[in-house]
Amino acid sequence: MLWNDVTRIRDEAPVIHSITNYVVMNTTANALLAVGASPVMAHAIEEVAEMVGLARALVLNIGTLSPAWVESMLAAGVAARKRGIPVVLDPVGAGATAYRTAVAHRILAEVKPTIVRGNASEIRALAFAESGTRGVDSTHPTDAAVDAGRVLSQRTGCTVSISGVVDVIIHGASTARVRNGVPLLARITGSGCTATVLTAAFAAVNPSPFHAAAHAMTLLGVAGELAAPRSSGPGTFQANLLDALAGVTRDELEGRAKLELP
Amino acid sequence: MLWNDVTRIRDEAPVIHSITNYVVMNTTANALLAVGASPVMAHAIEEVAEMVGLARALVLNIGTLSPAWVESMLAAGVAARKRGIPVVLDPVGAGATAYRTAVAHRILAEVKPTIVRGNASEIRALAFAESGTRGVDSTHPTDAAVDAGRVLSQRTGCTVSISGVVDVIIHGASTARVRNGVPLLARITGSGCTATVLTAAFAAVNPSPFHAAAHAMTLLGVAGELAAPRSSGPGTFQANLLDALAGVTRDELEGRAKLELP
Amino acid sequence: MLWNDVTRIRDEAPVIHSITNYVVMNTTANALLAVGASPVMAHAIEEVAEMVGLARALVLNIGTLSPAWVESMLAAGVAARKRGIPVVLDPVGAGATAYRTAVAHRILAEVKPTIVRGNASEIRALAFAESGTRGVDSTHPTDAAVDAGRVLSQRTGCTVSISGVVDVIIHGASTARVRNGVPLLARITGSGCTATVLTAAFAAVNPSPFHAAAHAMTLLGVAGELAAPRSSGPGTFQANLLDALAGVTRDELEGRAKLELP
Repeated sequence: MLWNDVTRIRDEAPVIHSITNYVVMNTTANALLAVGASPVMAHAIEEVAEMVGLARALVLNIGTLSPAWVESMLAAGVAARKRGIPVVLDPVGAGATAYRTAVAHRILAEVKPTIVRGNASEIRALAFAESGTRGVDSTHPTDAAVDAGRVLSQRTGCTVSISGVVDVIIHGASTARVRNGVPLLARITGSGCTATVLTAAFAAVNPSPFHAAAHAMTLLGVAGELAAPRSSGPGTFQANLLDALAGVTRDELEGRAKLELP
Repeated sequence: MLWNDVTRIRDEAPVIHSITNYVVMNTTANALLAVGASPVMAHAIEEVAEMVGLARALVLNIGTLSPAWVESMLAAGVAARKRGIPVVLDPVGAGATAYRTAVAHRILAEVKPTIVRGNASEIRALAFAESGTRGVDSTHPTDAAVDAGRVLSQRTGCTVSISGVVDVIIHGASTARVRNGVPLLARITGSGCTATVLTAAFAAVNPSPFHAAAHAMTLLGVAGELAAPRSSGPGTFQANLLDALAGVTRDELEGRAKLELP
Repeated sequence: MLWNDVTRIRDEAPVIHSITNYVVMNTTANALLAVGASPVMAHAIEEVAEMVGLARALVLNIGTLSPAWVESMLAAGVAARKRGIPVVLDPVGAGATAYRTAVAHRILAEVKPTIVRGNASEIRALAFAESGTRGVDSTHPTDAAVDAGRVLSQRTGCTVSISGVVDVIIHGASTARVRNGVPLLARITGSGCTATVLTAAFAAVNPSPFHAAAHAMTLLGVAGELAAPRSSGPGTFQANLLDALAGVTRDELEGRAKLELP
């Protein structure tokens, strides 16, 4: 299943439309290209709905939001749902400011994303209207966020993917865990956002958002494990991570995967 | 001629003003610095015309366009033409959406760029009002776009540079081909946009847009050939490509160049 | 003192809020993560004042400014000063256009930044209302800018940090010099902007802006010296620079530091 998704992405090169934050546009486009997907970025209200028509998944990432971008995210999201393609929301920094939290809630309500992919703080902010996000990094241990993920999934119907030392993927009453990854992933900017776009690429080829989210986190974690020993710090790790995403073999992926499905 | 351009860029460090897409700003600034040019980015309507006054070439790239940016591109483009400095248009994703295609046509009409640098799909969209762009990557083999390039060049008077497995540069009835390059160039984001800014750097030092465009594609292709064997994937390739652009020697460049001029 | 600051940043992971230019957002976020700080980017007027409330330093960088962003910079800057956290201004390209120079002066007047970090051309433009910036790179030798830095510091009360072959830090009548660094730092985009965000990270943990600025320039210069011999050009240098910022040891830093304090 996992490897099947990887080969389908490589063979089909699904177009993934991202409306995302400035910081990670380059990083996430390169991650999508590395796994074999075809990234496109467009944010003007004049074209987002039409651009979504060319894509097989849509990413909405609120990392550097502003009102005009929010309107475009909503329009693209609604167009994507009408076409039946998956929408992955990354609520970057939800809980950090009232505006950011409100926008995330508005996207949840108006777009009804297929998958929400965030860290523990962000998921708790959406589930419990808590604050306490520390910048864009998590301050809650992942497991403490499992309850929040369950609340959010059951209220909205979406799959919730929580990244952390152990990644937890929740859909309704089902829970998967991914125990792959390395500390260096937290020392480069955009590794969470990379998880989000990979989730979209997997959702483009796998009809189960729950499995797509779990597979994406496994691939990213394994790629990190392959890249870390070749790296002498976060700079070389970034380059080696892209190499690993592009070159990972079936044996490497299946041999290292620590994916616990229900 | 080719090496002469390279040394002039290294010696003169021409300022290249780019109004470009968010995804590749960092990548293309680094590519310009690697070859010895001096990149500047500015997009506010309040300053673009004045900033163009400091530059020796202007890049207009519509990869993440929006109305305010389009107005700035038009103002900067007109100011550049009044000053007599070359303007290179990269019609990223032309054909993908009606808005994007319309903006590319508007820049063609109002600015009359010196050079249009795109992939086959984009050039066909501009020449024949065809659609069918697949994201921002090409769906047409380059050679199938030669006719389109000729139509576009003869209608507008600009040089047309079409990137692909074989790059084709067209000016009126003249055609050049560049058979350099490696597949990894298609696995990193912004390699097309890098071709565009290098084209601008060469146009800053070479009065023939046709030769400037051909030389830029040759340098990029050769740099890719030098970088690929040192790389284990797209991540390390990115770094090695910049190293090769900065360090390529006359022997390496002239020994590898597969440039067919008329 | 220098090493003490480094360990405090690594231990305390201060949140640094940047409102900066598109070109360097990724680069500077990665530099902050490499030294152990926690970057956050937010520019919407709806949230900047609240986001500043989570941060221990604020960076204002005018490299790709536009009116809405300027308003956000002013609002964030005023909020930061009310809270008593340091504000570091990077007047990228001041002197290049009238708009850019005017915005830099407006931020100086309305925010009263703690530290201004620029190259010689930019500092001269702010001190003497000179023009002559060449793109965003410096055209004045650093030492020729020392007078300008003194004028600017004494007029505004801020610390002035001028990067160049020799970095000069000025506060009132005090002057420090840093003789670290390598030419490759000028061959990658955003090394000045990286100096700025590192200055903010040091200012977050060191109550003396003068010492914070001097320590930041020393760390960056030493990291460049460690990275350069491992690099074959500007691409690999970028990666190795991040590795060096993350991994530099006390012996390496203190052994190489060429910091002349008054």
